Amino acid sequence: MSTSSTPATENPIVLTTPTEREIHVERVFNASRHRVWTAYTDPGQIAQWWGRGNELVIERMEVRRGGHWRCVEHGPDGEHGFEGRYREVTPEEVLSYTFEWDGMPGHVIVETARFEELPDGRTRVVTTALFLTTEDRDGMLHSGMEQGMAESYRALDRLLAQG
Amino acid sequence: MSTSSTPATENPIVLTTPTEREIHVERVFNASRHRVWTAYTDPGQIAQWWGRGNELVIERMEVRRGGHWRCVEHGPDGEHGFEGRYREVTPEEVLSYTFEWDGMPGHVIVETARFEELPDGRTRVVTTALFLTTEDRDGMLHSGMEQGMAESYRALDRLLAQG
Repeated sequence: MSTSSTPATENPIVLTTPTEREIHVERVFNASRHRVWTAYTDPGQIAQWWGRGNELVIERMEVRRGGHWRCVEHGPDGEHGFEGRYREVTPEEVLSYTFEWDGMPGHVIVETARFEELPDGRTRVVTTALFLTTEDRDGMLHSGMEQGMAESYRALDRLLAQG
Repeated sequence: MSTSSTPATENPIVLTTPTEREIHVERVFNASRHRVWTAYTDPGQIAQWWGRGNELVIERMEVRRGGHWRCVEHGPDGEHGFEGRYREVTPEEVLSYTFEWDGMPGHVIVETARFEELPDGRTRVVTTALFLTTEDRDGMLHSGMEQGMAESYRALDRLLAQG
């Protein structure tokens, strides 16, 4: 008997590094594109998955080109603030924004998520992260990012399963 | 007879592009390092030179690592907002911060100014701008940046000449 809430059929993360300053991630979600877009852009829904179970206080989330966002994760090791600004918001298609962790101010990342409708009604989210330097990129890769991302995506799976 | 306020001995700007994503600028100022540092970090003084004669409203200027800055230039063609965050503040030595124009949100630049004392008591400011992409860098080079910078530096010369 398993107590894990992870479904046996969890969709895999495909992570590649196509250039020296990028991380490319693909992940399929078992929900419509409209549903997944909402989970990425509605503050109340983001708070349910992005923090992987940690409390997430969303201080600002102006989902439009030029708008700012800022959220603070309250984890067992303390508070972590993250913030940035939206570069492109094309509903249900493209969400592009800068991303900066308070612990490394000015080490800005540009994340661009593209939402692809699959023929079976599911959605593939293709996310590219562009870093200022290879050192910043490699620092992120060695920070436990992949595990944290897997946990976030699992929390998103659970949210989407609620319909 | 000249009505220009530019001194005959204006110090030249030396601009180079050492890599595909950088602009490197050197400029000497006829003042001590302490004096030049203050002109770069005191909001009241920045307002006197950075806007090249245009009104500059400084909404935020927290000169410390992780602090934010934001200012709005009121020019003949309207308002232009600029903002960013300090990456490094080492008094009188290094000032590094991100720079973003509201018109191109998320196209972040990292500017790093180093202040060098010269043996004759003057100060060389060496500024490197690192862009996310070559396209962003070239866009800046073709935007009239060099002329704007020359005007700002001339205004700074005048401020420094006031002692």
